[in-house]
Amino acid sequence: MASLAEDWPEAVETVNPSGSSEIVLICEHASNHMPAEYRGLGVSPADLRTHIAWDVGAAEVARGLAEVLDAPAFLGTYSRLLIDLNRPFRSPASIPARSEATDIPGNLGLSEAEIERRRRTMFTPFHDKVASYLDRRRAAGRPTRIVTIHSFTPVFLGVARPWHAGILFDRSHDFAEAVIEGLARSSGLNVAANQPYTVDRESDYAIPVHGTDRDLPAILVEIRNDLITDANGIAEWVGRLGPVLRSFHAGQG
Amino acid sequence: MASLAEDWPEAVETVNPSGSSEIVLICEHASNHMPAEYRGLGVSPADLRTHIAWDVGAAEVARGLAEVLDAPAFLGTYSRLLIDLNRPFRSPASIPARSEATDIPGNLGLSEAEIERRRRTMFTPFHDKVASYLDRRRAAGRPTRIVTIHSFTPVFLGVARPWHAGILFDRSHDFAEAVIEGLARSSGLNVAANQPYTVDRESDYAIPVHGTDRDLPAILVEIRNDLITDANGIAEWVGRLGPVLRSFHAGQG
Repeated sequence: MASLAEDWPEAVETVNPSGSSEIVLICEHASNHMPAEYRGLGVSPADLRTHIAWDVGAAEVARGLAEVLDAPAFLGTYSRLLIDLNRPFRSPASIPARSEATDIPGNLGLSEAEIERRRRTMFTPFHDKVASYLDRRRAAGRPTRIVTIHSFTPVFLGVARPWHAGILFDRSHDFAEAVIEGLARSSGLNVAANQPYTVDRESDYAIPVHGTDRDLPAILVEIRNDLITDANGIAEWVGRLGPVLRSFHAGQG
Repeated sequence: MASLAEDWPEAVETVNPSGSSEIVLICEHASNHMPAEYRGLGVSPADLRTHIAWDVGAAEVARGLAEVLDAPAFLGTYSRLLIDLNRPFRSPASIPARSEATDIPGNLGLSEAEIERRRRTMFTPFHDKVASYLDRRRAAGRPTRIVTIHSFTPVFLGVARPWHAGILFDRSHDFAEAVIEGLARSSGLNVAANQPYTVDRESDYAIPVHGTDRDLPAILVEIRNDLITDANGIAEWVGRLGPVLRSFHAGQG
Protein backbone atom coordinates (compact mmCIF):
# COMPACT_ATOMS: atom_id res chain seq x y z
CA MET A 1 0.00 0.00 0.00
CA ALA A 2 1.54 3.29 -1.12
CA SER A 3 1.95 6.01 1.47
CA LEU A 4 -0.73 8.57 0.77
CA ALA A 5 0.96 11.60 2.29
CA GLU A 6 4.40 10.91 0.80
CA ASP A 7 3.57 9.24 -2.49
CA TRP A 8 0.35 11.09 -3.36
CA PRO A 9 0.60 14.38 -1.47
CA GLU A 10 -2.00 17.11 -1.63
CA ALA A 11 -1.34 18.98 -4.88
CA VAL A 12 -0.48 22.23 -3.17
CA GLU A 13 1.69 23.07 -0.20
CA THR A 14 0.54 26.27 1.45
CA VAL A 15 3.21 28.24 3.25
CA ASN A 16 2.29 31.03 5.67
CA PRO A 17 -1.42 31.18 4.68
CA SER A 18 -2.19 34.00 7.09
CA GLY A 19 0.68 36.15 5.84
CA SER A 20 -0.10 39.85 5.97
CA SER A 21 1.58 40.92 2.72
CA GLU A 22 -0.15 42.33 -0.33
CA ILE A 23 1.99 39.87 -2.32
CA VAL A 24 0.73 36.33 -2.98
CA LEU A 25 3.48 33.97 -4.12
CA ILE A 26 2.91 31.02 -6.46
CA CYS A 27 5.58 28.47 -7.34
CA GLU A 28 4.10 25.95 -9.77
CA HIS A 29 7.29 24.03 -10.53
CA ALA A 30 8.51 23.70 -6.95
CA SER A 31 8.86 19.90 -6.90
CA ASN A 32 10.17 17.08 -9.06
CA HIS A 33 8.17 14.48 -7.11
CA MET A 34 6.44 11.62 -8.89
CA PRO A 35 4.43 8.85 -7.20
CA ALA A 36 6.36 5.56 -7.34
CA GLU A 37 3.98 3.91 -9.77
CA TYR A 38 5.09 6.31 -12.54
CA ARG A 39 8.67 4.95 -12.41
CA GLY A 40 9.94 8.40 -13.35
CA LEU A 41 7.97 8.26 -16.62
CA GLY A 42 10.97 6.39 -18.06
CA VAL A 43 13.29 9.38 -17.57
CA SER A 44 16.68 8.79 -15.94
CA PRO A 45 17.10 9.81 -12.29
CA ALA A 46 19.83 12.24 -13.36
CA ASP A 47 17.54 13.98 -15.83
CA LEU A 48 14.78 14.13 -13.22
CA ARG A 49 17.04 16.32 -11.11
CA THR A 50 17.33 18.91 -13.89
CA HIS A 51 15.14 21.78 -15.05
CA ILE A 52 13.03 19.48 -17.21
CA ALA A 53 11.31 18.06 -14.12
CA TRP A 54 11.05 21.24 -12.00
CA ASP A 55 12.40 24.77 -11.60
CA VAL A 56 15.65 24.23 -9.74
CA GLY A 57 15.93 26.52 -6.72
CA ALA A 58 12.55 28.18 -7.22
CA ALA A 59 10.86 26.57 -4.21
CA GLU A 60 13.60 27.75 -1.87
CA VAL A 61 13.40 31.31 -3.21
CA ALA A 62 9.60 31.25 -2.82
CA ARG A 63 9.86 29.98 0.76
CA GLY A 64 12.47 32.61 1.58
CA LEU A 65 10.30 35.37 0.14
CA ALA A 66 7.25 34.09 2.02
CA GLU A 67 9.23 34.56 5.19
CA VAL A 68 10.85 37.94 4.56
CA LEU A 69 7.65 39.43 3.09
CA ASP A 70 5.27 37.67 5.51
CA ALA A 71 3.46 36.54 2.37
CA PRO A 72 1.45 33.39 1.67
CA ALA A 73 2.98 31.03 -0.90
CA PHE A 74 1.40 28.19 -2.87
CA LEU A 75 3.87 25.53 -4.01
CA GLY A 76 3.21 22.66 -6.41
CA THR A 77 4.07 19.22 -5.05
CA TYR A 78 4.33 17.13 -8.25
CA SER A 79 6.77 17.24 -11.16
CA ARG A 80 5.76 19.38 -14.12
CA LEU A 81 6.42 16.31 -16.27
CA LEU A 82 3.24 14.71 -14.89
CA ILE A 83 1.12 17.77 -15.62
CA ASP A 84 2.37 21.33 -15.92
CA LEU A 85 0.56 23.66 -13.53
CA ASN A 86 1.51 26.66 -15.65
CA ARG A 87 0.02 25.38 -18.91
CA PRO A 88 -3.67 25.31 -19.74
CA PHE A 89 -5.07 21.81 -19.33
CA ARG A 90 -5.02 20.04 -22.72
CA SER A 91 -2.57 22.56 -24.23
CA PRO A 92 0.33 20.87 -26.10
CA ALA A 93 2.85 21.33 -23.27
CA SER A 94 0.46 20.35 -20.47
CA ILE A 95 1.71 16.74 -20.42
CA PRO A 96 4.86 16.89 -22.53
CA ALA A 97 6.06 13.97 -24.63
CA ARG A 98 9.41 15.76 -24.96
CA SER A 99 11.09 18.40 -22.79
CA GLU A 100 13.97 20.33 -24.32
CA ALA A 101 15.87 17.40 -25.89
CA THR A 102 14.63 14.62 -23.59
CA ASP A 103 11.86 12.21 -24.52
CA ILE A 104 9.32 11.43 -21.82
CA PRO A 105 8.30 7.85 -22.66
CA GLY A 106 5.75 7.58 -19.86
CA ASN A 107 3.73 10.42 -21.38
CA LEU A 108 3.20 8.73 -24.75
CA GLY A 109 -0.18 7.28 -25.66
CA LEU A 110 -1.88 8.16 -22.38
CA SER A 111 -5.45 7.01 -21.83
CA GLU A 112 -8.16 9.58 -21.23
CA ALA A 113 -8.58 8.10 -17.75
CA GLU A 114 -4.92 8.80 -16.92
CA ILE A 115 -5.04 12.35 -18.29
CA GLU A 116 -8.19 12.93 -16.28
CA ARG A 117 -6.60 11.44 -13.15
CA ARG A 118 -3.66 13.85 -13.39
CA ARG A 119 -6.04 16.76 -13.90
CA ARG A 120 -8.13 15.76 -10.87
CA THR A 121 -5.33 14.91 -8.48
CA MET A 122 -2.77 17.56 -9.47
CA PHE A 123 -3.94 20.41 -11.71
CA THR A 124 -7.46 21.22 -10.56
CA PRO A 125 -6.89 21.08 -6.78
CA PHE A 126 -3.83 23.35 -7.05
CA HIS A 127 -5.64 26.05 -8.97
CA ASP A 128 -8.90 25.63 -7.04
CA LYS A 129 -7.02 26.30 -3.84
CA VAL A 130 -5.38 29.43 -5.21
CA ALA A 131 -8.68 30.64 -6.72
CA SER A 132 -10.64 30.10 -3.53
CA TYR A 133 -7.95 31.87 -1.53
CA LEU A 134 -8.02 34.86 -3.90
CA ASP A 135 -11.83 34.91 -3.70
CA ARG A 136 -11.64 35.12 0.08
CA ARG A 137 -9.04 37.88 -0.04
CA ARG A 138 -11.33 39.86 -2.31
CA ALA A 139 -14.28 39.23 0.00
CA ALA A 140 -12.20 40.46 2.92
CA GLY A 141 -11.12 43.58 1.00
CA ARG A 142 -7.42 42.65 0.94
CA PRO A 143 -5.38 44.24 -1.90
CA THR A 144 -3.42 41.58 -3.77
CA ARG A 145 -0.49 41.30 -6.17
CA ILE A 146 0.47 37.98 -7.71
CA VAL A 147 4.15 37.05 -8.01
CA THR A 148 5.03 33.66 -9.44
CA ILE A 149 8.55 32.31 -8.94
CA HIS A 150 10.33 30.34 -11.67
CA SER A 151 13.86 29.53 -12.77
CA PHE A 152 15.34 28.93 -16.20
CA THR A 153 18.29 26.98 -17.52
CA PRO A 154 21.31 29.06 -18.64
CA VAL A 155 21.50 27.18 -21.95
CA PHE A 156 18.41 25.95 -23.81
CA LEU A 157 18.80 23.79 -26.92
CA GLY A 158 22.36 25.05 -27.24
CA VAL A 159 21.58 28.75 -26.97
CA ALA A 160 23.02 30.67 -24.03
CA ARG A 161 20.74 33.08 -22.17
CA PRO A 162 22.52 36.18 -20.96
CA TRP A 163 19.97 37.52 -18.45
CA HIS A 164 20.36 36.99 -14.72
CA ALA A 165 16.63 37.24 -14.36
CA GLY A 166 13.52 38.12 -16.29
CA ILE A 167 10.29 39.75 -15.14
CA LEU A 168 7.41 38.58 -17.32
CA PHE A 169 3.93 40.08 -17.45
CA ASP A 170 0.70 40.22 -19.37
CA ARG A 171 -1.07 43.47 -18.41
CA SER A 172 1.03 44.57 -15.44
CA HIS A 173 3.59 46.67 -17.28
CA ASP A 174 4.04 49.21 -14.47
CA PHE A 175 4.44 46.61 -11.73
CA ALA A 176 6.97 44.70 -13.84
CA GLU A 177 8.95 47.82 -14.77
CA ALA A 178 9.14 48.91 -11.15
CA VAL A 179 10.48 45.51 -10.10
CA ILE A 180 12.99 45.44 -12.97
CA GLU A 181 14.20 48.90 -12.08
CA GLY A 182 14.39 48.09 -8.39
CA LEU A 183 16.37 44.93 -9.05
CA ALA A 184 18.71 46.51 -11.57
CA ARG A 185 19.38 49.50 -9.30
CA SER A 186 20.17 47.37 -6.29
CA SER A 187 22.20 44.70 -8.03
CA GLY A 188 23.55 46.02 -11.33
CA LEU A 189 22.46 42.74 -12.89
CA ASN A 190 20.99 42.10 -16.29
CA VAL A 191 17.25 41.90 -15.62
CA ALA A 192 15.03 41.95 -18.69
CA ALA A 193 11.33 42.40 -19.38
CA ASN A 194 9.62 39.36 -20.87
CA GLN A 195 12.77 37.24 -21.18
CA PRO A 196 13.53 34.39 -21.68
CA TYR A 197 9.84 33.95 -22.56
CA THR A 198 6.72 35.97 -22.96
CA VAL A 199 3.48 35.24 -21.16
CA ASP A 200 0.36 34.37 -23.11
CA ARG A 201 -2.88 32.59 -22.40
CA GLU A 202 -2.11 29.71 -24.75
CA SER A 203 1.06 28.64 -22.98
CA ASP A 204 0.73 30.08 -19.47
CA TYR A 205 -1.87 29.72 -16.78
CA ALA A 206 -1.31 31.51 -13.46
CA ILE A 207 -0.64 35.03 -14.74
CA PRO A 208 -3.59 35.19 -17.20
CA VAL A 209 -6.07 33.28 -15.01
CA HIS A 210 -5.22 34.33 -11.45
CA GLY A 211 -3.88 37.74 -12.47
CA THR A 212 -5.40 39.20 -15.63
CA ASP A 213 -8.85 37.63 -15.27
CA ARG A 214 -9.15 39.03 -11.75
CA ASP A 215 -7.68 42.42 -12.59
CA LEU A 216 -4.86 41.81 -10.16
CA PRO A 217 -1.32 43.07 -10.79
CA ALA A 218 0.70 39.96 -11.64
CA ILE A 219 4.28 39.22 -12.64
CA LEU A 220 6.27 36.08 -13.28
CA VAL A 221 9.83 36.13 -11.92
CA GLU A 222 12.38 33.99 -13.81
CA ILE A 223 15.78 33.54 -12.16
CA ARG A 224 18.66 31.87 -14.03
CA ASN A 225 18.97 28.60 -12.17
CA ASP A 226 22.77 28.49 -11.96
CA LEU A 227 22.50 31.51 -9.64
CA ILE A 228 20.31 29.71 -7.09
CA THR A 229 21.87 26.25 -6.83
CA ASP A 230 23.02 26.65 -3.24
CA ALA A 231 21.98 28.33 -0.01
CA ASN A 232 24.14 31.37 -0.64
CA GLY A 233 22.66 32.04 -4.05
CA ILE A 234 19.14 31.53 -2.75
CA ALA A 235 19.71 33.89 0.16
CA GLU A 236 21.20 36.44 -2.23
CA TRP A 237 18.10 36.41 -4.46
CA VAL A 238 15.69 36.47 -1.54
CA GLY A 239 17.67 39.44 -0.28
CA ARG A 240 17.38 41.15 -3.67
CA LEU A 241 13.74 40.46 -4.41
CA GLY A 242 12.43 40.90 -0.88
CA PRO A 243 13.03 44.66 -0.50
CA VAL A 244 11.84 45.40 -4.03
CA LEU A 245 8.60 43.46 -3.56
CA ARG A 246 8.12 44.79 -0.04
CA SER A 247 7.81 48.30 -1.44
CA PHE A 248 4.40 47.22 -2.81
CA HIS A 249 2.93 46.44 0.59
CA ALA A 250 -0.22 48.37 1.34
CA GLY A 251 -0.32 47.49 5.02
CA GLN A 252 3.23 48.12 6.20
CA GLY A 253 4.44 46.41 9.34
CA MET B 1 -9.89 45.60 6.83
CA ALA B 2 -11.55 42.31 7.78
CA SER B 3 -9.34 39.54 9.13
CA LEU B 4 -8.97 37.00 6.37
CA ALA B 5 -8.24 33.95 8.51
CA GLU B 6 -10.93 34.65 11.11
CA ASP B 7 -13.64 36.34 9.08
CA TRP B 8 -13.22 34.50 5.77
CA PRO B 9 -11.58 31.21 6.70
CA GLU B 10 -10.72 28.49 4.22
CA ALA B 11 -14.00 26.64 3.57
CA VAL B 12 -12.78 23.37 5.00
CA GLU B 13 -10.87 22.51 8.14
CA THR B 14 -8.92 19.30 7.69
CA VAL B 15 -8.29 17.31 10.85
CA ASN B 16 -5.69 14.52 10.90
CA PRO B 17 -5.18 14.39 7.10
CA SER B 18 -2.66 11.57 7.30
CA GLY B 19 -4.95 9.40 9.45
CA SER B 20 -4.54 5.69 8.77
CA SER B 21 -8.19 4.64 9.06
CA GLU B 22 -10.34 3.26 6.30
CA ILE B 23 -13.00 5.73 7.51
CA VAL B 24 -13.10 9.26 6.12
CA LEU B 25 -15.21 11.63 8.23
CA ILE B 26 -17.13 14.58 6.84
CA CYS B 27 -18.98 17.15 8.96
CA GLU B 28 -20.63 19.67 6.67
CA HIS B 29 -22.55 21.59 9.33
CA ALA B 30 -19.71 21.90 11.83
CA SER B 31 -19.78 25.69 12.20
CA ASN B 32 -22.26 28.53 12.59
CA HIS B 33 -19.69 31.11 11.51
CA MET B 34 -20.66 33.99 9.25
CA PRO B 35 -18.32 36.76 8.06
CA ALA B 36 -19.18 40.04 9.80
CA GLU B 37 -20.48 41.73 6.67
CA TYR B 38 -23.49 39.33 6.62
CA ARG B 39 -24.73 40.68 9.99
CA GLY B 40 -26.11 37.23 10.77
CA LEU B 41 -28.37 37.41 7.71
CA GLY B 42 -30.84 39.25 9.92
CA VAL B 43 -31.31 36.27 12.24
CA SER B 44 -31.11 36.84 16.01
CA PRO B 45 -27.90 35.79 17.78
CA ALA B 46 -29.97 33.36 19.88
CA ASP B 47 -31.36 31.64 16.80
CA LEU B 48 -27.89 31.49 15.26
CA ARG B 49 -26.81 29.28 18.15
CA THR B 50 -29.50 26.70 17.33
CA HIS B 51 -29.73 23.84 14.84
CA ILE B 52 -30.92 26.15 12.09
CA ALA B 53 -27.39 27.57 11.69
CA TRP B 54 -25.35 24.39 12.26
CA ASP B 55 -25.51 20.85 13.63
CA VAL B 56 -25.05 21.38 17.36
CA GLY B 57 -22.36 19.05 18.76
CA ALA B 58 -21.54 17.42 15.44
CA ALA B 59 -18.10 19.02 15.04
CA GLU B 60 -17.00 17.80 18.46
CA VAL B 61 -18.17 14.26 17.76
CA ALA B 62 -16.35 14.32 14.39
CA ARG B 63 -13.15 15.57 16.03
CA GLY B 64 -13.39 12.93 18.72
CA LEU B 65 -13.90 10.18 16.17
CA ALA B 66 -10.99 11.46 14.07
CA GLU B 67 -8.82 10.97 17.11
CA VAL B 68 -10.03 7.59 18.34
CA LEU B 69 -10.15 6.12 14.82
CA ASP B 70 -7.02 7.88 13.56
CA ALA B 71 -9.22 9.02 10.69
CA PRO B 72 -9.09 12.17 8.58
CA ALA B 73 -12.03 14.55 9.01
CA PHE B 74 -13.23 17.41 6.82
CA LEU B 75 -15.23 20.07 8.67
CA GLY B 76 -17.17 22.95 7.17
CA THR B 77 -16.23 26.38 8.49
CA TYR B 78 -19.29 28.50 7.52
CA SER B 79 -22.91 28.39 8.65
CA ARG B 80 -25.25 26.27 6.57
CA LEU B 81 -27.49 29.34 6.35
CA LEU B 82 -24.98 30.95 3.97
CA ILE B 83 -24.86 27.92 1.71
CA ASP B 84 -25.63 24.34 2.74
CA LEU B 85 -22.73 22.01 1.97
CA ASN B 86 -25.06 19.02 2.01
CA ARG B 87 -27.49 20.32 -0.60
CA PRO B 88 -26.85 20.41 -4.33
CA PHE B 89 -25.91 23.91 -5.45
CA ARG B 90 -29.05 25.70 -6.70
CA SER B 91 -31.40 23.18 -5.02
CA PRO B 92 -34.22 24.87 -3.06
CA ALA B 93 -32.58 24.38 0.35
CA SER B 94 -29.08 25.37 -0.78
CA ILE B 95 -29.51 28.97 0.41
CA PRO B 96 -32.66 28.82 2.51
CA ALA B 97 -35.05 31.74 2.83
CA ARG B 98 -36.66 29.93 5.77
CA SER B 99 -35.31 27.29 8.15
CA GLU B 100 -37.81 25.35 10.23
CA ALA B 101 -39.98 28.29 11.39
CA THR B 102 -37.39 31.06 11.15
CA ASP B 103 -37.18 33.48 8.24
CA ILE B 104 -33.70 34.27 6.92
CA PRO B 105 -34.06 37.84 5.68
CA GLY B 106 -30.49 38.10 4.41
CA ASN B 107 -31.14 35.28 1.93
CA LEU B 108 -34.02 36.99 0.17
CA GLY B 109 -33.56 38.46 -3.29
CA LEU B 110 -29.89 37.57 -3.61
CA SER B 111 -28.01 38.72 -6.69
CA GLU B 112 -26.42 36.16 -8.97
CA ALA B 113 -23.05 37.61 -8.00
CA GLU B 114 -23.68 36.91 -4.31
CA ILE B 115 -24.93 33.36 -4.97
CA GLU B 116 -21.85 32.77 -7.10
CA ARG B 117 -19.59 34.24 -4.43
CA ARG B 118 -20.95 31.81 -1.82
CA ARG B 119 -20.50 28.92 -4.23
CA ARG B 120 -16.91 29.91 -4.98
CA THR B 121 -15.78 30.74 -1.48
CA MET B 122 -17.69 28.08 0.48
CA PHE B 123 -19.31 25.26 -1.47
CA THR B 124 -16.90 24.45 -4.28
CA PRO B 125 -13.63 24.57 -2.29
CA PHE B 126 -15.06 22.28 0.41
CA HIS B 127 -16.15 19.60 -2.01
CA ASP B 128 -13.12 20.02 -4.29
CA LYS B 129 -10.89 19.33 -1.32
CA VAL B 130 -12.79 16.21 -0.35
CA ALA B 131 -12.92 15.01 -3.98
CA SER B 132 -9.22 15.55 -4.56
CA TYR B 133 -8.42 13.74 -1.31
CA LEU B 134 -10.58 10.78 -2.31
CA ASP B 135 -8.93 10.74 -5.74
CA ARG B 136 -5.53 10.50 -4.12
CA ARG B 137 -6.65 7.73 -1.77
CA ARG B 138 -7.87 5.78 -4.77
CA ALA B 139 -4.59 6.39 -6.61
CA ALA B 140 -2.69 5.14 -3.57
CA GLY B 141 -4.90 2.05 -3.32
CA ARG B 142 -6.38 2.98 0.08
CA PRO B 143 -9.78 1.39 0.86
CA THR B 144 -12.26 4.04 1.96
CA ARG B 145 -15.60 4.32 3.74
CA ILE B 146 -17.39 7.64 4.05
CA VAL B 147 -19.07 8.56 7.34
CA THR B 148 -20.72 11.97 7.62
CA ILE B 149 -21.60 13.30 11.07
CA HIS B 150 -24.79 15.29 11.68
CA SER B 151 -27.16 16.10 14.52
CA PHE B 152 -30.90 16.71 14.56
CA THR B 153 -33.23 18.66 16.78
CA PRO B 154 -35.43 16.59 19.14
CA VAL B 155 -38.55 18.47 18.04
CA PHE B 156 -39.08 19.73 14.50
CA LEU B 157 -42.09 21.91 13.67
CA GLY B 158 -43.75 20.64 16.84
CA VAL B 159 -43.22 16.95 16.18
CA ALA B 160 -41.07 14.98 18.65
CA ARG B 161 -38.50 12.58 17.24
CA PRO B 162 -38.09 9.46 19.33
CA TRP B 163 -34.80 8.10 17.94
CA HIS B 164 -31.49 8.63 19.73
CA ALA B 165 -29.71 8.38 16.42
CA GLY B 166 -30.32 7.52 12.80
CA ILE B 167 -28.05 5.89 10.25
CA LEU B 168 -28.92 7.08 6.76
CA PHE B 169 -27.71 5.58 3.50
CA ASP B 170 -28.25 5.48 -0.22
CA ARG B 171 -26.69 2.23 -1.52
CA SER B 172 -24.77 1.10 1.56
CA HIS B 173 -27.45 -0.99 3.21
CA ASP B 174 -25.04 -3.55 4.67
CA PHE B 175 -22.65 -0.97 6.12
CA ALA B 176 -25.55 0.95 7.66
CA GLU B 177 -27.20 -2.18 9.11
CA ALA B 178 -23.94 -3.29 10.66
CA VAL B 179 -23.46 0.11 12.32
CA ILE B 180 -27.07 0.19 13.55
CA GLU B 181 -26.75 -3.30 14.98
CA GLY B 182 -23.40 -2.51 16.58
CA LEU B 183 -24.76 0.68 18.17
CA ALA B 184 -27.99 -0.90 19.37
CA ARG B 185 -26.18 -3.90 20.84
CA SER B 186 -23.67 -1.81 22.74
CA SER B 187 -26.05 0.89 23.95
CA GLY B 188 -29.59 -0.43 23.94
CA LEU B 189 -30.61 2.85 22.33
CA ASN B 190 -33.20 3.52 19.66
CA VAL B 191 -31.14 3.72 16.47
CA ALA B 192 -33.14 3.70 13.26
CA ALA B 193 -32.35 3.27 9.58
CA ASN B 194 -33.06 6.32 7.44
CA GLN B 195 -34.54 8.42 10.24
CA PRO B 196 -35.27 11.29 10.76
CA TYR B 197 -34.66 11.74 7.01
CA THR B 198 -33.87 9.72 3.98
CA VAL B 199 -30.96 10.46 1.67
CA ASP B 200 -31.54 11.36 -1.96
CA ARG B 201 -29.64 13.14 -4.66
CA GLU B 202 -32.09 16.02 -4.85
CA SER B 203 -31.68 17.08 -1.23
CA ASP B 204 -28.30 15.63 -0.19
CA TYR B 205 -24.82 15.97 -1.56
CA ALA B 206 -21.97 14.17 0.22
CA ILE B 207 -23.44 10.65 0.33
CA PRO B 208 -24.58 10.51 -3.33
CA VAL B 209 -21.60 12.40 -4.77
CA HIS B 210 -18.63 11.33 -2.63
CA GLY B 211 -20.10 7.92 -1.79
CA THR B 212 -22.44 6.49 -4.42
CA ASP B 213 -20.78 8.07 -7.46
CA ARG B 214 -17.42 6.65 -6.38
CA ASP B 215 -18.79 3.25 -5.38
CA LEU B 216 -17.60 3.85 -1.83
CA PRO B 217 -19.57 2.59 1.19
CA ALA B 218 -21.11 5.69 2.74
CA ILE B 219 -23.40 6.44 5.67
CA LEU B 220 -24.75 9.57 7.29
CA VAL B 221 -24.87 9.49 11.09
CA GLU B 222 -27.58 11.63 12.73
CA ILE B 223 -27.37 12.07 16.51
CA ARG B 224 -30.18 13.75 18.44
CA ASN B 225 -28.57 16.99 19.46
CA ASP B 226 -29.85 17.10 23.06
CA LEU B 227 -27.61 14.07 23.69
CA ILE B 228 -24.39 15.86 22.66
CA THR B 229 -24.75 19.30 24.20
CA ASP B 230 -21.88 18.89 26.65
CA ALA B 231 -18.50 17.19 26.90
CA ASN B 232 -19.93 14.15 28.65
CA GLY B 233 -22.51 13.50 25.97
CA ILE B 234 -19.96 14.03 23.22
CA ALA B 235 -17.49 11.64 24.86
CA GLU B 236 -20.27 9.11 25.29
CA TRP B 237 -21.16 9.15 21.58
CA VAL B 238 -17.52 9.10 20.46
CA GLY B 239 -17.14 6.12 22.79
CA ARG B 240 -20.14 4.41 21.21
CA LEU B 241 -19.45 5.12 17.56
CA GLY B 242 -15.67 4.66 17.70
CA PRO B 243 -15.57 0.90 18.39
CA VAL B 244 -18.38 0.18 15.94
CA LEU B 245 -16.69 2.12 13.12
CA ARG B 246 -13.27 0.78 14.03
CA SER B 247 -14.43 -2.73 13.20
CA PHE B 248 -14.40 -1.67 9.52
CA HIS B 249 -10.69 -0.88 9.47
CA ALA B 250 -8.84 -2.84 6.83
CA GLY B 251 -5.38 -1.96 8.12
CA GLN B 252 -5.64 -2.63 11.85
CA GLY B 253 -3.16 -0.99 14.15
